[in-house]
Amino acid sequence: MKITLAHGSGGKITHELIKDVFFRHLGNDILKKAEDSGVADARPGKMAVTTDSFVVKPVFFPGGDIGKLAVCGTVNDLAVTGASPKYITAGFIIEEGFSLEDLEKIVRSMAEWALKAGVEVIAGDTKVVEKGEADGIFINTSGVGFFEGASELSAGNIRPGDKVIITGTMGDHGIAVLSRRKGLDFQSDIKSDCAPLAGMLADVTAAGGVKFMRDPTRGGLATTLNEITRGTELGIVIEEEKAPVSGPVRSACELLGLDPLYVANEGKAVIVAGKGSAENIIAVLRRHEYGKDASVIGEVTREAGGRVCLRTRYGTARIIDMMASEQLPRIC
Amino acid sequence: MKITLAHGSGGKITHELIKDVFFRHLGNDILKKAEDSGVADARPGKMAVTTDSFVVKPVFFPGGDIGKLAVCGTVNDLAVTGASPKYITAGFIIEEGFSLEDLEKIVRSMAEWALKAGVEVIAGDTKVVEKGEADGIFINTSGVGFFEGASELSAGNIRPGDKVIITGTMGDHGIAVLSRRKGLDFQSDIKSDCAPLAGMLADVTAAGGVKFMRDPTRGGLATTLNEITRGTELGIVIEEEKAPVSGPVRSACELLGLDPLYVANEGKAVIVAGKGSAENIIAVLRRHEYGKDASVIGEVTREAGGRVCLRTRYGTARIIDMMASEQLPRIC
Repeated sequence: MKITLAHGSGGKITHELIKDVFFRHLGNDILKKAEDSGVADARPGKMAVTTDSFVVKPVFFPGGDIGKLAVCGTVNDLAVTGASPKYITAGFIIEEGFSLEDLEKIVRSMAEWALKAGVEVIAGDTKVVEKGEADGIFINTSGVGFFEGASELSAGNIRPGDKVIITGTMGDHGIAVLSRRKGLDFQSDIKSDCAPLAGMLADVTAAGGVKFMRDPTRGGLATTLNEITRGTELGIVIEEEKAPVSGPVRSACELLGLDPLYVANEGKAVIVAGKGSAENIIAVLRRHEYGKDASVIGEVTREAGGRVCLRTRYGTARIIDMMASEQLPRIC
Repeated sequence: MKITLAHGSGGKITHELIKDVFFRHLGNDILKKAEDSGVADARPGKMAVTTDSFVVKPVFFPGGDIGKLAVCGTVNDLAVTGASPKYITAGFIIEEGFSLEDLEKIVRSMAEWALKAGVEVIAGDTKVVEKGEADGIFINTSGVGFFEGASELSAGNIRPGDKVIITGTMGDHGIAVLSRRKGLDFQSDIKSDCAPLAGMLADVTAAGGVKFMRDPTRGGLATTLNEITRGTELGIVIEEEKAPVSGPVRSACELLGLDPLYVANEGKAVIVAGKGSAENIIAVLRRHEYGKDASVIGEVTREAGGRVCLRTRYGTARIIDMMASEQLPRIC
């Protein structure tokens, strides 16, 4: 069965698709009311709101699919601000002719990961465009989270001497997607790290000392670190040998001429924490499935203001700038 | 200037686009923090959350553009539940080669209509796909609204004898988009009715007696009425001659073989209200710019359970079913 324009008409066929696929897998009391908005309990205080569109190619890749990616990406964007993710929305743009079976696989995957991440899908939308006017399927997920006593994290809290922590190996997602796209075989099983980090990051913030978190997705670790220092008086110095990169990802990057520090991750966070808290945070992280390879990779400095500096394993130093152009299109 | 893949890389060029286009027009204290989520004040009690992707073709049409449509569509989806729209998000999927000038026009339009609708854009995302892999630009807007003392409206409140009100003429949006798409010239100026209805609908609910509201977008009035009766014991009977359709839209529909009751609207609401309140609601609506042609078009019945029935101007009656297939793809 293929998706047709009628699936996006708003009429009978759309309603059948909603019932048979979306409600079947993602349904909950709020979504199933099928009103124009999902109505849910809010919390007093601050809330976090985020949005992300996913155009990853191919839609199925080692370690995940566009549905898992959409759920985890949005959950992680909420979690890194210190909020507890609660509700997400799902907007589908589907190309006419896309496989209904693949759509259902994707939606099932979203349901599975939403459950694991502790979020409910409370609003959705489906549009279908003519064959050739989109590439398979694009998914937007937006999300809402509440702070529930936790405080809002912000780059403004960062001070010289703070430690920079990364929760695991770099570049796995980008290389996994690329390997499937190009039909490359790296003789080893490189899987996307795509994962929902909210539980682990909540434990980390509860442990104390966390000042700022961000997930190093598009543009990788290098871009995220530059986003922190950019336009500030602060620099960041990281030690190349402490930035964890798996053997297979390192080999693949050498083969492809890519720098793993610029390659996208989808299940990692950069954490900036007070000097005295770093060790405890590493201990908390390593207890988690998604934090086993956590490592302190560097620190915030007064020197090199606005810049990110890498101390190589040979003792030399170089500036790690933000990437100017596109290294890997449609990685998420 | 054209959009390139680098604009979606997450690197320097993406940051420039965000600063020069998105922050310049949509910027506010929350958005400009450029964190992974916008952090804003929540309200205790219930909240409404909605999402919509817009794929309208062409992106500029008489009476609006995809940006205005995205803002108004999401604002209206919140407003019809009885909530007061507060925050929206904006997710862009752009085809490589799309005009930067057109993007800026669209973003400026979003800013203008967000201001008029009283909502702030607090989170955004930009993805760029290769030439030929999307059609120009797709926009997702998700939204959050709060009830602030108002009660949640729901189809479950509807009873036989309730009046069915429409806030204005039918089919203007669909015909305006179609005329531009096909290069048709109807010898008259048919404009999209695209408009933010939150202010008007808040006045209407404050007036009392409103049980349910919905905006008749894709699939038009006929589909919306069927969504109300579907799976219930209730029927709806509407009087054809009371459903307002402008002369030019009626002529265009005749020419194109379309039924205006199935054509999309983007600045109209269907309101179901208690019998005794209908007259006052019409008076409130007619005071508003967007409600001048408001009219009671029919009522909820015990008969014809689950169905919508049209009494024609010739005294005959026919069932108005939900459309099965696609009449007008990519109308929103």
